[in-house]
Amino acid sequence: MADSLLDRLVADLRCLPGVGPKSAQRMAFQLLERDREGGLRLAASLAEAMRRIGHCRRCRNFAEEELCPICRSGSRERQLVCVVESPVDLAALEQATGFRGDYFVLHGRLSPIDGRGPAELGLDLLDARLAAGEVTELIIATNPTVEGEATAHYLAGLARQHGVRASRLAHGVPLGGELEFIDRGTLAHAFGARQDL
Amino acid sequence: MADSLLDRLVADLRCLPGVGPKSAQRMAFQLLERDREGGLRLAASLAEAMRRIGHCRRCRNFAEEELCPICRSGSRERQLVCVVESPVDLAALEQATGFRGDYFVLHGRLSPIDGRGPAELGLDLLDARLAAGEVTELIIATNPTVEGEATAHYLAGLARQHGVRASRLAHGVPLGGELEFIDRGTLAHAFGARQDL
Repeated sequence: MADSLLDRLVADLRCLPGVGPKSAQRMAFQLLERDREGGLRLAASLAEAMRRIGHCRRCRNFAEEELCPICRSGSRERQLVCVVESPVDLAALEQATGFRGDYFVLHGRLSPIDGRGPAELGLDLLDARLAAGEVTELIIATNPTVEGEATAHYLAGLARQHGVRASRLAHGVPLGGELEFIDRGTLAHAFGARQDL
Repeated sequence: MADSLLDRLVADLRCLPGVGPKSAQRMAFQLLERDREGGLRLAASLAEAMRRIGHCRRCRNFAEEELCPICRSGSRERQLVCVVESPVDLAALEQATGFRGDYFVLHGRLSPIDGRGPAELGLDLLDARLAAGEVTELIIATNPTVEGEATAHYLAGLARQHGVRASRLAHGVPLGGELEFIDRGTLAHAFGARQDL
Protein backbone atom coordinates (compact mmCIF):
# COMPACT_ATOMS: atom_id res chain seq x y z
CA MET A 1 0.00 0.00 0.00
CA ALA A 2 2.91 2.38 -0.58
CA ASP A 3 0.92 3.73 -3.49
CA SER A 4 -2.67 4.38 -2.44
CA LEU A 5 -5.54 4.78 -4.88
CA LEU A 6 -5.70 8.45 -3.96
CA ASP A 7 -1.99 9.01 -4.64
CA ARG A 8 -2.36 7.22 -7.94
CA LEU A 9 -5.36 9.34 -8.92
CA VAL A 10 -3.45 12.53 -8.08
CA ALA A 11 -0.45 11.35 -10.11
CA ASP A 12 -2.60 10.34 -13.09
CA LEU A 13 -4.49 13.65 -13.11
CA ARG A 14 -1.20 15.32 -13.92
CA CYS A 15 -1.31 13.99 -17.49
CA LEU A 16 -3.82 16.81 -18.08
CA PRO A 17 -2.17 19.93 -19.52
CA GLY A 18 -1.70 22.74 -17.01
CA VAL A 19 -2.36 20.54 -13.98
CA GLY A 20 0.41 20.53 -11.37
CA PRO A 21 0.63 18.63 -8.08
CA LYS A 22 -1.46 21.16 -6.13
CA SER A 23 -4.34 21.36 -8.57
CA ALA A 24 -4.30 17.58 -9.14
CA GLN A 25 -4.75 17.14 -5.40
CA ARG A 26 -7.55 19.70 -5.30
CA MET A 27 -9.29 17.96 -8.21
CA ALA A 28 -9.07 14.52 -6.59
CA PHE A 29 -10.37 15.74 -3.22
CA GLN A 30 -13.13 17.78 -4.79
CA LEU A 31 -14.40 14.84 -6.84
CA LEU A 32 -14.25 12.49 -3.86
CA GLU A 33 -16.02 14.92 -1.55
CA ARG A 34 -18.60 16.47 -3.82
CA ASP A 35 -18.98 14.85 -7.18
CA ARG A 36 -18.36 11.11 -7.39
CA GLU A 37 -21.09 10.86 -10.02
CA GLY A 38 -19.26 13.38 -12.19
CA GLY A 39 -15.98 11.57 -11.63
CA LEU A 40 -17.46 8.27 -12.77
CA ARG A 41 -19.03 9.92 -15.80
CA LEU A 42 -15.69 11.49 -16.70
CA ALA A 43 -13.90 8.14 -16.27
CA ALA A 44 -16.34 6.47 -18.66
CA SER A 45 -16.24 9.10 -21.38
CA LEU A 46 -12.46 9.39 -21.09
CA ALA A 47 -11.96 5.65 -21.57
CA GLU A 48 -14.41 5.53 -24.46
CA ALA A 49 -12.94 8.59 -26.19
CA MET A 50 -9.34 7.33 -25.87
CA ARG A 51 -10.32 3.96 -27.33
CA ARG A 52 -12.79 4.90 -30.01
CA ILE A 53 -11.81 8.27 -31.45
CA GLY A 54 -9.64 7.79 -34.52
CA HIS A 55 -8.88 9.91 -37.57
CA CYS A 56 -11.17 10.69 -40.49
CA ARG A 57 -9.72 8.94 -43.52
CA ARG A 58 -10.52 11.90 -45.76
CA CYS A 59 -9.44 14.99 -43.76
CA ARG A 60 -7.53 13.41 -40.83
CA ASN A 61 -9.63 15.27 -38.24
CA PHE A 62 -10.67 13.33 -35.13
CA ALA A 63 -13.61 11.04 -35.92
CA GLU A 64 -15.48 8.22 -34.24
CA GLU A 65 -16.28 6.64 -37.58
CA GLU A 66 -14.52 6.32 -40.93
CA LEU A 67 -15.45 9.89 -41.82
CA CYS A 68 -15.79 12.90 -39.54
CA PRO A 69 -19.13 14.78 -39.36
CA ILE A 70 -17.81 17.55 -41.64
CA CYS A 71 -16.76 15.10 -44.37
CA ARG A 72 -20.05 13.21 -44.02
CA SER A 73 -22.13 16.39 -44.17
CA GLY A 74 -24.04 17.04 -47.38
CA SER A 75 -23.98 20.82 -47.02
CA ARG A 76 -20.29 21.75 -47.10
CA GLU A 77 -18.62 23.39 -50.12
CA ARG A 78 -16.24 20.69 -51.31
CA GLN A 79 -14.28 23.05 -53.59
CA LEU A 80 -12.80 24.95 -50.61
CA VAL A 81 -10.26 23.18 -48.41
CA CYS A 82 -8.76 24.82 -45.35
CA VAL A 83 -5.50 23.28 -44.11
CA VAL A 84 -4.81 23.47 -40.37
CA GLU A 85 -2.06 22.12 -38.16
CA SER A 86 -4.27 20.50 -35.56
CA PRO A 87 -7.87 19.68 -34.63
CA VAL A 88 -7.84 22.52 -32.05
CA ASP A 89 -7.23 25.00 -34.87
CA LEU A 90 -10.08 23.46 -36.83
CA ALA A 91 -12.38 23.83 -33.82
CA ALA A 92 -11.29 27.46 -33.37
CA LEU A 93 -12.04 28.27 -37.03
CA GLU A 94 -15.41 26.48 -36.90
CA GLN A 95 -16.38 28.45 -33.82
CA ALA A 96 -15.13 31.83 -35.07
CA THR A 97 -15.86 31.89 -38.79
CA GLY A 98 -18.79 31.02 -40.99
CA PHE A 99 -16.56 28.87 -43.21
CA ARG A 100 -18.63 26.13 -44.85
CA GLY A 101 -15.90 24.33 -46.81
CA ASP A 102 -13.83 21.28 -45.99
CA TYR A 103 -10.72 20.96 -43.86
CA PHE A 104 -7.48 19.06 -43.93
CA VAL A 105 -5.64 18.41 -40.66
CA LEU A 106 -1.85 18.02 -40.79
CA HIS A 107 -1.37 16.93 -37.15
CA GLY A 108 1.88 18.88 -37.06
CA ARG A 109 4.01 20.90 -39.45
CA LEU A 110 6.98 20.23 -41.67
CA SER A 111 10.03 19.83 -39.49
CA PRO A 112 12.81 17.83 -41.14
CA ILE A 113 14.88 17.95 -37.92
CA ASP A 114 12.18 16.00 -36.09
CA GLY A 115 11.69 13.67 -39.03
CA ARG A 116 8.34 15.20 -40.00
CA GLY A 117 8.21 15.32 -43.77
CA PRO A 118 5.25 15.47 -46.19
CA ALA A 119 4.45 11.77 -45.65
CA GLU A 120 4.02 12.20 -41.87
CA LEU A 121 1.59 15.08 -42.48
CA GLY A 122 -0.53 12.93 -44.82
CA LEU A 123 0.21 15.19 -47.76
CA ASP A 124 -0.16 12.30 -50.24
CA LEU A 125 -3.84 12.31 -49.24
CA LEU A 126 -4.11 16.06 -49.85
CA ASP A 127 -2.20 15.67 -53.11
CA ALA A 128 -4.70 13.08 -54.33
CA ARG A 129 -7.58 15.34 -53.35
CA LEU A 130 -6.12 18.29 -55.27
CA ALA A 131 -5.38 16.03 -58.25
CA ALA A 132 -9.04 14.94 -58.37
CA GLY A 133 -9.84 18.44 -59.67
CA GLU A 134 -12.80 19.29 -57.44
CA VAL A 135 -10.90 21.76 -55.23
CA THR A 136 -10.59 25.35 -56.45
CA GLU A 137 -9.02 27.06 -53.44
CA LEU A 138 -6.64 25.85 -50.75
CA ILE A 139 -6.86 28.10 -47.68
CA ILE A 140 -3.65 27.70 -45.71
CA ALA A 141 -4.21 28.30 -42.00
CA THR A 142 -0.98 26.99 -40.51
CA ASN A 143 0.37 28.98 -37.55
CA PRO A 144 2.50 32.07 -38.26
CA THR A 145 5.64 30.45 -36.82
CA VAL A 146 8.82 29.70 -38.74
CA GLU A 147 7.82 26.07 -39.29
CA GLY A 148 4.20 27.00 -39.97
CA GLU A 149 5.35 29.45 -42.65
CA ALA A 150 7.64 26.84 -44.23
CA THR A 151 4.73 24.41 -44.28
CA ALA A 152 2.50 27.08 -45.86
CA HIS A 153 5.13 27.66 -48.51
CA TYR A 154 5.28 23.94 -49.30
CA LEU A 155 1.48 23.70 -49.47
CA ALA A 156 1.32 26.70 -51.81
CA GLY A 157 3.74 24.88 -54.13
CA LEU A 158 1.55 21.79 -54.03
CA ALA A 159 -1.52 23.86 -54.94
CA ARG A 160 0.34 25.52 -57.80
CA GLN A 161 1.29 22.12 -59.24
CA HIS A 162 -2.39 21.28 -59.52
CA GLY A 163 -3.43 24.75 -60.75
CA VAL A 164 -5.35 25.39 -57.53
CA ARG A 165 -5.51 28.87 -56.00
CA ALA A 166 -3.73 29.06 -52.63
CA SER A 167 -4.57 31.68 -49.99
CA ARG A 168 -3.28 32.44 -46.52
CA LEU A 169 -4.99 33.94 -43.45
CA ALA A 170 -4.37 37.70 -43.20
CA HIS A 171 -1.72 38.80 -40.70
CA GLY A 172 -1.86 42.10 -38.87
CA VAL A 173 -3.02 43.93 -35.79
CA PRO A 174 -5.57 41.85 -33.84
CA LEU A 175 -8.97 43.48 -33.36
CA GLY A 176 -9.22 45.08 -29.95
CA GLY A 177 -5.44 44.99 -29.60
CA GLU A 178 -3.49 48.08 -28.64
CA LEU A 179 -0.59 49.08 -30.84
CA GLU A 180 1.75 49.66 -27.90
CA PHE A 181 1.45 46.02 -26.83
CA ILE A 182 1.82 44.38 -30.22
CA ASP A 183 5.12 42.73 -31.09
CA ARG A 184 7.38 44.48 -33.57
CA GLY A 185 7.17 41.81 -36.25
CA THR A 186 3.38 41.95 -36.44
CA LEU A 187 3.38 45.74 -36.36
CA ALA A 188 5.96 45.98 -39.14
CA HIS A 189 3.98 43.52 -41.23
CA ALA A 190 0.70 45.33 -40.61
CA PHE A 191 2.31 48.65 -41.57
CA GLY A 192 3.77 47.25 -44.77
CA ALA A 193 0.51 45.55 -45.73
CA ARG A 194 -1.66 48.61 -45.00
CA GLN A 195 -4.84 48.87 -47.03
CA ASP A 196 -6.74 51.78 -48.56
CA LEU A 197 -9.77 52.97 -46.63
CA MET B 1 -24.80 11.98 -33.32
CA ALA B 2 -25.74 15.45 -32.01
CA ASP B 3 -23.54 14.68 -29.03
CA SER B 4 -20.20 13.28 -30.16
CA LEU B 5 -17.81 11.41 -27.90
CA LEU B 6 -15.47 14.37 -28.08
CA ASP B 7 -18.18 16.85 -27.04
CA ARG B 8 -19.16 14.58 -24.19
CA LEU B 9 -15.56 14.28 -23.02
CA VAL B 10 -15.16 18.08 -23.07
CA ALA B 11 -18.42 18.50 -21.13
CA ASP B 12 -17.47 15.85 -18.56
CA LEU B 13 -14.00 17.33 -18.01
CA ARG B 14 -15.74 20.43 -16.68
CA CYS B 15 -16.64 18.60 -13.47
CA LEU B 16 -13.00 19.20 -12.48
CA PRO B 17 -12.60 22.33 -10.33
CA GLY B 18 -11.16 25.30 -12.21
CA VAL B 19 -11.73 23.79 -15.66
CA GLY B 20 -13.79 25.95 -18.03
CA PRO B 21 -14.85 25.25 -21.62
CA LYS B 22 -11.54 26.40 -23.14
CA SER B 23 -9.28 24.36 -20.90
CA ALA B 24 -11.56 21.32 -21.10
CA GLN B 25 -11.21 21.45 -24.88
CA ARG B 26 -7.44 21.83 -24.63
CA MET B 27 -7.26 18.87 -22.26
CA ALA B 28 -9.35 16.64 -24.52
CA PHE B 29 -7.36 17.48 -27.64
CA GLN B 30 -4.04 17.14 -25.87
CA LEU B 31 -4.89 13.68 -24.54
CA LEU B 32 -6.19 12.52 -27.93
CA GLU B 33 -3.18 13.84 -29.80
CA ARG B 34 -0.34 13.09 -27.44
CA ASP B 35 -1.22 10.91 -24.51
CA ARG B 36 -3.93 8.30 -25.01
CA GLU B 37 -2.07 5.97 -22.66
CA GLY B 38 -2.19 8.60 -19.93
CA GLY B 39 -5.87 9.23 -20.63
CA LEU B 40 -6.69 5.54 -20.26
CA ARG B 41 -4.66 5.31 -17.06
CA LEU B 42 -6.49 8.33 -15.66
CA ALA B 43 -9.87 6.86 -16.62
CA ALA B 44 -9.05 3.62 -14.78
CA SER B 45 -7.75 5.20 -11.59
CA LEU B 46 -10.60 7.72 -11.58
CA ALA B 47 -13.24 4.99 -11.81
CA GLU B 48 -11.53 2.87 -9.17
CA ALA B 49 -11.00 5.79 -6.77
CA MET B 50 -14.62 6.99 -7.08
CA ARG B 51 -15.94 3.48 -6.39
CA ARG B 52 -13.56 2.21 -3.76
CA ILE B 53 -12.45 5.15 -1.61
CA GLY B 54 -14.67 5.43 1.45
CA HIS B 55 -14.24 6.93 4.91
CA CYS B 56 -12.13 5.60 7.77
CA ARG B 57 -14.52 4.49 10.49
CA ARG B 58 -12.28 5.90 13.20
CA CYS B 59 -11.21 9.34 11.93
CA ARG B 60 -13.47 9.81 8.87
CA ASN B 61 -10.52 10.53 6.57
CA PHE B 62 -10.61 9.03 3.06
CA ALA B 63 -9.66 5.36 3.18
CA GLU B 64 -9.72 2.38 0.87
CA GLU B 65 -10.23 0.01 3.76
CA GLU B 66 -12.04 0.12 7.12
CA LEU B 67 -9.24 2.19 8.63
CA CYS B 68 -7.04 4.80 6.97
CA PRO B 69 -3.23 4.33 6.94
CA ILE B 70 -2.81 6.82 9.81
CA CYS B 71 -5.29 5.00 12.07
CA ARG B 72 -3.73 1.66 11.14
CA SER B 73 -0.18 2.89 11.79
CA GLY B 74 1.50 1.65 14.93
CA SER B 75 3.71 4.70 15.32
CA ARG B 76 1.32 7.60 15.85
CA GLU B 77 0.72 9.26 19.21
CA ARG B 78 -2.86 8.32 20.02
CA GLN B 79 -3.19 10.86 22.83
CA LEU B 80 -3.06 13.81 20.39
CA VAL B 81 -6.01 14.36 18.03
CA CYS B 82 -6.04 17.14 15.45
CA VAL B 83 -9.50 18.09 14.15
CA VAL B 84 -9.69 19.40 10.56
CA GLU B 85 -12.57 20.38 8.33
CA SER B 86 -11.58 18.33 5.31
CA PRO B 87 -9.10 15.74 4.00
CA VAL B 88 -7.29 18.50 2.05
CA ASP B 89 -6.52 20.24 5.32
CA LEU B 90 -5.25 16.96 6.75
CA ALA B 91 -2.98 16.50 3.74
CA ALA B 92 -1.68 20.07 4.08
CA LEU B 93 -0.84 19.54 7.76
CA GLU B 94 0.81 16.18 7.07
CA GLN B 95 2.96 17.75 4.38
CA ALA B 96 3.89 20.87 6.35
CA THR B 97 4.25 19.76 9.95
CA GLY B 98 5.95 16.93 11.75
CA PHE B 99 2.74 16.13 13.64
CA ARG B 100 2.69 12.45 14.57
CA GLY B 101 -0.68 12.26 16.33
CA ASP B 102 -4.11 11.26 15.06
CA TYR B 103 -6.67 13.25 13.12
CA PHE B 104 -10.39 13.64 13.03
CA VAL B 105 -12.04 14.88 9.81
CA LEU B 106 -15.32 16.77 10.10
CA HIS B 107 -16.12 16.93 6.36
CA GLY B 108 -17.59 20.37 6.88
CA ARG B 109 -18.24 22.75 9.75
CA LEU B 110 -21.19 23.54 11.96
CA SER B 111 -23.72 25.45 9.94
CA PRO B 112 -27.26 25.22 11.33
CA ILE B 113 -28.64 27.17 8.36
CA ASP B 114 -27.49 24.39 5.99
CA GLY B 115 -28.68 21.72 8.40
CA ARG B 116 -25.15 20.74 9.43
CA GLY B 117 -25.22 20.00 13.14
CA PRO B 118 -22.89 17.90 15.34
CA ALA B 119 -24.38 14.64 14.03
CA GLU B 120 -23.53 15.47 10.38
CA LEU B 121 -19.93 16.15 11.39
CA GLY B 122 -19.65 12.78 13.12
CA LEU B 123 -19.11 14.41 16.51
CA ASP B 124 -20.67 11.42 18.33
CA LEU B 125 -17.64 9.47 17.11
CA LEU B 126 -15.26 12.13 18.44
CA ASP B 127 -17.23 12.32 21.67
CA ALA B 128 -16.82 8.57 22.20
CA ARG B 129 -13.11 8.83 21.52
CA LEU B 130 -12.67 11.62 24.07
CA ALA B 131 -14.79 9.71 26.58
CA ALA B 132 -12.50 6.68 26.24
CA GLY B 133 -9.89 8.70 28.15
CA GLU B 134 -6.85 8.06 25.94
CA VAL B 135 -6.78 11.54 24.40
CA THR B 136 -4.99 14.29 26.32
CA GLU B 137 -5.06 17.15 23.82
CA LEU B 138 -7.51 18.14 21.10
CA ILE B 139 -5.80 20.36 18.50
CA ILE B 140 -8.49 22.34 16.71
CA ALA B 141 -7.44 23.21 13.16
CA THR B 142 -10.72 24.38 11.64
CA ASN B 143 -10.45 27.30 9.23
CA PRO B 144 -10.39 30.84 10.65
CA THR B 145 -13.78 31.71 9.14
CA VAL B 146 -16.91 32.62 11.09
CA GLU B 147 -18.28 29.08 10.83
CA GLY B 148 -14.87 27.54 11.46
CA GLU B 149 -14.51 29.61 14.64
CA ALA B 150 -18.00 28.60 15.80
CA THR B 151 -17.07 24.97 15.19
CA ALA B 152 -13.82 25.44 17.11
CA HIS B 153 -15.78 26.93 19.99
CA TYR B 154 -18.14 23.95 20.04
CA LEU B 155 -15.22 21.49 19.92
CA ALA B 156 -13.47 23.28 22.79
CA GLY B 157 -16.65 22.84 24.84
CA LEU B 158 -16.70 19.14 24.01
CA ALA B 159 -13.07 18.77 25.11
CA ARG B 160 -13.78 20.63 28.36
CA GLN B 161 -16.65 18.22 29.16
CA HIS B 162 -14.18 15.35 29.03
CA GLY B 163 -11.41 17.19 30.84
CA VAL B 164 -9.26 17.20 27.70
CA ARG B 165 -6.98 20.14 26.89
CA ALA B 166 -8.08 22.00 23.73
CA SER B 167 -5.68 24.06 21.61
CA ARG B 168 -6.05 26.12 18.44
CA LEU B 169 -3.58 26.89 15.63
CA ALA B 170 -1.87 30.26 16.14
CA HIS B 171 -3.18 33.16 14.08
CA GLY B 172 -0.99 36.02 12.92
CA VAL B 173 1.19 37.37 10.16
CA PRO B 174 2.16 34.59 7.69
CA LEU B 175 5.90 33.96 7.36
CA GLY B 176 7.27 35.75 4.32
CA GLY B 177 4.19 37.97 4.15
CA GLU B 178 4.50 41.74 3.95
CA LEU B 179 2.59 43.80 6.45
CA GLU B 180 1.25 46.19 3.84
CA PHE B 181 -0.59 43.36 2.05
CA ILE B 182 -2.08 41.63 5.08
CA ASP B 183 -5.77 42.10 5.79
CA ARG B 184 -6.73 44.35 8.68
CA GLY B 185 -8.32 41.61 10.79
CA THR B 186 -5.19 39.48 10.78
CA LEU B 187 -2.96 42.46 11.44
CA ALA B 188 -5.08 43.65 14.37
CA HIS B 189 -5.08 40.13 15.80
CA ALA B 190 -1.31 39.75 15.37
CA PHE B 191 -0.74 43.13 17.03
CA GLY B 192 -2.97 42.28 19.99
CA ALA B 193 -1.40 38.84 20.41
CA ARG B 194 2.21 40.11 20.13
CA GLN B 195 4.77 38.06 22.00
CA ASP B 196 7.88 38.96 23.95
CA LEU B 197 11.16 38.48 22.14
